[in-house]
Amino acid sequence: MSQIHAYAAMNVNGALEPYAYDLGELGPEEAEIKVSHCGICHSDLSMLGNDWGMSAYPFVPGHEVVGTIVALGEQAKGLKIGQTVGLGWSAYSCLACPECLSGNHNLCATTQATIIGRHGGFADRVRAQWAWVRPLPEGLDLEKTGPMLCGGVTVFAPFLVHNIPPTARVGVIGIGGLGHMALQFANKWGCEVHAFTTSDSKEAEARKLGAHFVHNTRNADALKEVAGSLDFIISTINVPIDVPGLLGALAPQGRLHVVGAILEPMQVPALGLIFGQKSVAGSPTGSPNVLDKMLSFSARHGVAPVTELFPMSKVNDAMEHLRAGKARYRIVLENDLA
Amino acid sequence: MSQIHAYAAMNVNGALEPYAYDLGELGPEEAEIKVSHCGICHSDLSMLGNDWGMSAYPFVPGHEVVGTIVALGEQAKGLKIGQTVGLGWSAYSCLACPECLSGNHNLCATTQATIIGRHGGFADRVRAQWAWVRPLPEGLDLEKTGPMLCGGVTVFAPFLVHNIPPTARVGVIGIGGLGHMALQFANKWGCEVHAFTTSDSKEAEARKLGAHFVHNTRNADALKEVAGSLDFIISTINVPIDVPGLLGALAPQGRLHVVGAILEPMQVPALGLIFGQKSVAGSPTGSPNVLDKMLSFSARHGVAPVTELFPMSKVNDAMEHLRAGKARYRIVLENDLA
Repeated sequence: MSQIHAYAAMNVNGALEPYAYDLGELGPEEAEIKVSHCGICHSDLSMLGNDWGMSAYPFVPGHEVVGTIVALGEQAKGLKIGQTVGLGWSAYSCLACPECLSGNHNLCATTQATIIGRHGGFADRVRAQWAWVRPLPEGLDLEKTGPMLCGGVTVFAPFLVHNIPPTARVGVIGIGGLGHMALQFANKWGCEVHAFTTSDSKEAEARKLGAHFVHNTRNADALKEVAGSLDFIISTINVPIDVPGLLGALAPQGRLHVVGAILEPMQVPALGLIFGQKSVAGSPTGSPNVLDKMLSFSARHGVAPVTELFPMSKVNDAMEHLRAGKARYRIVLENDLA
Repeated sequence: MSQIHAYAAMNVNGALEPYAYDLGELGPEEAEIKVSHCGICHSDLSMLGNDWGMSAYPFVPGHEVVGTIVALGEQAKGLKIGQTVGLGWSAYSCLACPECLSGNHNLCATTQATIIGRHGGFADRVRAQWAWVRPLPEGLDLEKTGPMLCGGVTVFAPFLVHNIPPTARVGVIGIGGLGHMALQFANKWGCEVHAFTTSDSKEAEARKLGAHFVHNTRNADALKEVAGSLDFIISTINVPIDVPGLLGALAPQGRLHVVGAILEPMQVPALGLIFGQKSVAGSPTGSPNVLDKMLSFSARHGVAPVTELFPMSKVNDAMEHLRAGKARYRIVLENDLA
């Protein structure tokens, strides 16, 4: 087997440097992808810093991969050599548990992430189980598709999880890497879209991305102004949120859905759920089928992240740009490895 | 108009004493019910004590009414004189708001409770808007039907709210006035039923009521033993619950549903919702349509509360019995007023 050339950190928060390895023979269920582009997600930074205590070094980040199939195992299904594909957060699931068999592979207890216990997509090639390697439909901009495979599906899946109708009034909290895609999905889904941000400077951009209304949550009355009116709120931020206030902003039967990894427990008032028959929920990324639906929906409606392109050889500059909070809104690496 | 004879408290936590009043002409949308039985719910005690700051005195408790229609306003629909009917927590809703028009009258912002701003069912007659006065199907034991109209529908509605399938594994927390009905509903719904109690003495009874498994939550491992296995948990208690532990007991896509008025904020970990796509929700009583479904389901399956019968003239003894935590499991007053 030929060697794979990648960028790896040798230790916690170490600089990414050229690193080569041989993955051995391709597994029967695996596909090998020649990487053309790979997005950078905030979780790549978290894993680089071992924030979640499950990083191993050398660590090769990257789980928003776009590329071409160059090799297929004998049992790899639904793919062909030369096909343009995408790979997101997950690279393996058992296919046999109740979750996999019911189409919820992202909830499989043995699911493996592309960058946990595996080498990711900051590389010339990456491997994954066929089920997680999704053929890309026509009409997507390949430079912008990587971030949809993790961040995009994370904010798209909740619309399917809750079967949100296009008549819904939808709030999006946080206009960043996830939120700026959520605004687009909500708008193209046919909903009335409310953006919640702490930054007045993002108002014009939020409207351009699909928000019909923009609320600055530094204004103490922002939530009161929409009291009892929203059917669905997606929170994309990872700092504590005002749950009682958000429940108050929900209409009867409204749902607050969190996808941001808030580390402190949320303070949820039982009566705030009971009186209006409301709920607080969460979800992780999306299944292969939901990835496909997200991709074809995006191709049909022209949904795409706002991206900044870096050559992969400048990966350390790109990581620093993200770390500094300057990414608007997602960074994509273009593979310039030999 | 003839006078209504009732039992009323003249002040906060005062003894209930005979009290007569004239409600004037019947409103065009109202039905007047001659009360044969009225359940006592814990919220009657809370209202008697003005625990929620919205009681008015003289206060006539009682919102689990069974009786016969004796008068109907001109616009009262779907009812006829002499019909056997039930009346629960709600006695009025606007019928015209989005919630009412979509069949969720219990979520109407202007809904009126039978015992808030109105005189309740500890009386020979009580009035309510026609929509909330539900004809009782054949086959119900009228002595036991009152408690189903508030407590019963409160634990029945969540099965419809979440569209719980009979294949679900269901947990019921708290085997009391609400929980002992929830066990029966879950069993007759076709589910695998798990009872959670702090009292070993309730195990045999929980099984008789429909539990397939009984867990004592004073045992620290009780929730761990069912880790990742339950699809739906209904919490009927009003003291703080171990939300992280309960989320851990849920299978992927599991739902924790609270109907008990826990006053302290629940501590809900965002990651506990996200990883398994779980939710925490709540709901209040049920709509007229859900009341009807609950009543016919109960008649078909023989669901009924375990009750203790008191004559209405012994209402103070009955209230004291409930206050002392001795009710097993619901008290019903039989009208012996002249």
